[in-house]
Amino acid sequence: MITAAVSLATAQRSLGDPGVRYPLYPPLLRGCPRTATPGLVFPVEVDYAYQDVPADLFTSSPRRGGLERWAPLLPPLDAPGLGEGATPLVPLGDGVWIKDESRNPTWSHKDRLNRVAVGAAVHEGAEGIAVASSGNHGASAAAYAARAGLRCVVLASAGAPPAVASFLRAYGADVVAVPAEARWPLLAMIAERLGYHTVSNLTPTHTGHPFGPEGYKTVAYEIHADLGVPAAVFVPAGYGELLFGVWKGFRELRDLGVTDRVPRVFGCEPAAGGPLAAAVRTGAPAAVVPTGATDAYAIDCSVGGNRAVRAVLDSGGDALLVTDAELRRARDELARQGLWAELSAAAGLAGFRQWAAREGDAGGPVVCVSTSSGFKDLGVGGDPLEPVEPTWEAVTRALRRP
Amino acid sequence: MITAAVSLATAQRSLGDPGVRYPLYPPLLRGCPRTATPGLVFPVEVDYAYQDVPADLFTSSPRRGGLERWAPLLPPLDAPGLGEGATPLVPLGDGVWIKDESRNPTWSHKDRLNRVAVGAAVHEGAEGIAVASSGNHGASAAAYAARAGLRCVVLASAGAPPAVASFLRAYGADVVAVPAEARWPLLAMIAERLGYHTVSNLTPTHTGHPFGPEGYKTVAYEIHADLGVPAAVFVPAGYGELLFGVWKGFRELRDLGVTDRVPRVFGCEPAAGGPLAAAVRTGAPAAVVPTGATDAYAIDCSVGGNRAVRAVLDSGGDALLVTDAELRRARDELARQGLWAELSAAAGLAGFRQWAAREGDAGGPVVCVSTSSGFKDLGVGGDPLEPVEPTWEAVTRALRRP
Repeated sequence: MITAAVSLATAQRSLGDPGVRYPLYPPLLRGCPRTATPGLVFPVEVDYAYQDVPADLFTSSPRRGGLERWAPLLPPLDAPGLGEGATPLVPLGDGVWIKDESRNPTWSHKDRLNRVAVGAAVHEGAEGIAVASSGNHGASAAAYAARAGLRCVVLASAGAPPAVASFLRAYGADVVAVPAEARWPLLAMIAERLGYHTVSNLTPTHTGHPFGPEGYKTVAYEIHADLGVPAAVFVPAGYGELLFGVWKGFRELRDLGVTDRVPRVFGCEPAAGGPLAAAVRTGAPAAVVPTGATDAYAIDCSVGGNRAVRAVLDSGGDALLVTDAELRRARDELARQGLWAELSAAAGLAGFRQWAAREGDAGGPVVCVSTSSGFKDLGVGGDPLEPVEPTWEAVTRALRRP
Repeated sequence: MITAAVSLATAQRSLGDPGVRYPLYPPLLRGCPRTATPGLVFPVEVDYAYQDVPADLFTSSPRRGGLERWAPLLPPLDAPGLGEGATPLVPLGDGVWIKDESRNPTWSHKDRLNRVAVGAAVHEGAEGIAVASSGNHGASAAAYAARAGLRCVVLASAGAPPAVASFLRAYGADVVAVPAEARWPLLAMIAERLGYHTVSNLTPTHTGHPFGPEGYKTVAYEIHADLGVPAAVFVPAGYGELLFGVWKGFRELRDLGVTDRVPRVFGCEPAAGGPLAAAVRTGAPAAVVPTGATDAYAIDCSVGGNRAVRAVLDSGGDALLVTDAELRRARDELARQGLWAELSAAAGLAGFRQWAAREGDAGGPVVCVSTSSGFKDLGVGGDPLEPVEPTWEAVTRALRRP
């Protein structure tokens, strides 16, 4: 469903200086040029004619799915959708809710970003989509590229979990495994020489796609529709685009007078890295940090960006560093409640449990975003079933008795 | 959310003879005893006080998810939910829609059945859930058992795809791989000796859980809410419980006066087996057939049941046998549209394409139910990525050039 005419998007605006604006097109795929310095590039975001937002945008009934529900506050949706979004809030009890993004078309939150980013590519008449990712982002981009009739090349890594290798290829994209440090230069070449539209970062601090993160605002709109404004939202943070989108969505609701406050948003990163935490701690707009080993490969980012820093500081939230042990505890807690989440996806709940142990009550409902299905995780498929003798004795021996 | 008080369920009724009724509890886990003959057992279904259905049940706005939305026309939902259902209809074009059941909590339609079946187990005070399945049904039962605080044992097969082995174990169930022919006797022993509630078939023709398939009616309610009554619905058919539920849901809508007709429902089975097709062809209430090799392991059933036969005959639909080649073509068509479906899940679209090539226009919108994510398929994870030299030449060589 193409609803380009309904978008109220007007311009791109620098996160480095709100006075610095650019026309909406072309999308700036390397962040804000005017505020860039060597080593630090600010992202741009999208601005809208907020005065023209339809009065019933946030009161009309929820639809089954599809970002077009929120078209006025998204960039023009020039790419067809897959019924993305409209994911459920699952109660854990004690005022804690899980926003389960594994219910999306490619079973992660990335679908909200790629629906929007691929729309920009269609608008620009791109030959195809180029993406650097070993997992969810690559597969999601491949799916939306296919849906839009565009080619797609995914620069992945040979270390991708085997099931994820099948996933990346499933939509017809060309998948090439190259070392991580070679990806960005190759992406730039593919963009320049083949006319492909990049949906991955090309700058020394993270900027990524200018339109894509706007798709994540819909997470906030949905939470608001189901629950109102929670006390806090805990979000797994890699580059922080999801964190930013959630915050911006709640900010818009407040600025439009639909709500009166913004929840505290917390970015939850692997303790082995933590570019967001480093930036917050040092007061830098963004940071690059060395990373140690972690199994949370989807959010194992050394390069941070300014979006997440803005969201955390403006909302009174924080950056939380979670160890792999904390991540596993949270993942296991979710699994015991019937939700099989990828380890990285459990970072939101892990961050909340850590924060609550220290700070106590949040003073209201808490939402932890769970970004992705457990099928994407490391180790999946590594332990096939071994046959057991079909006797009563053997079966009961195999059952874990209390 | 426990909404036991809202259910209008009154009794169990035999599919073998509508005059044969039983109290709602206990749930009859081995079909209808009164109409059973050696080799043929009829299922039971659930009857409701239809005269008390709230006037606005089908007109009030769609919720985000959770079968409790439809509580009056479901058995008492005594087990907590996971925001199941409310899946999107994705347009393929030319009046064809895909109902994407991979958006459920465990990424298949089985969640609608297990929310209901585990509720019966909770009501009965069962010690746990026992299920025989090498895939979606087992994992879904495990998830809802965990959510309800019940133990779960899954009798699987050693041939389960490796990623699915991880899936089956993820929710804390005890997973034991035994030969297929040993499963049913062991299930019966587990039920009897350990007090577990079985959610899998125990009879020579398929009966399965008496309440579970009622959960599938919600697929029909949702299609109706989004689209009205389609001309036809094409459904992958293993035991035919989903097919039955979709048909019953539309039948209820018509009998309640909400709609004026029932769509034709088509059960789409692997050509290597086809118990539904055999029963329809021979006029039998149900059939058992030998099965040859097929990669559609999730619907590779030799034992059929009467539910699917009723749905197909009453609605003017048919049983369609689809070859693995037709299944692959349909799966590839879905993937090119950004939907990665398990091979078995593509049977609905495969059946429609076959039927339409023969019969032409359906005379209205057509819905193909796609039951499950491609992550559950055979071969997933069997082809890890191989590293490529990070040079422009090597990368373009790896890209499939036109």
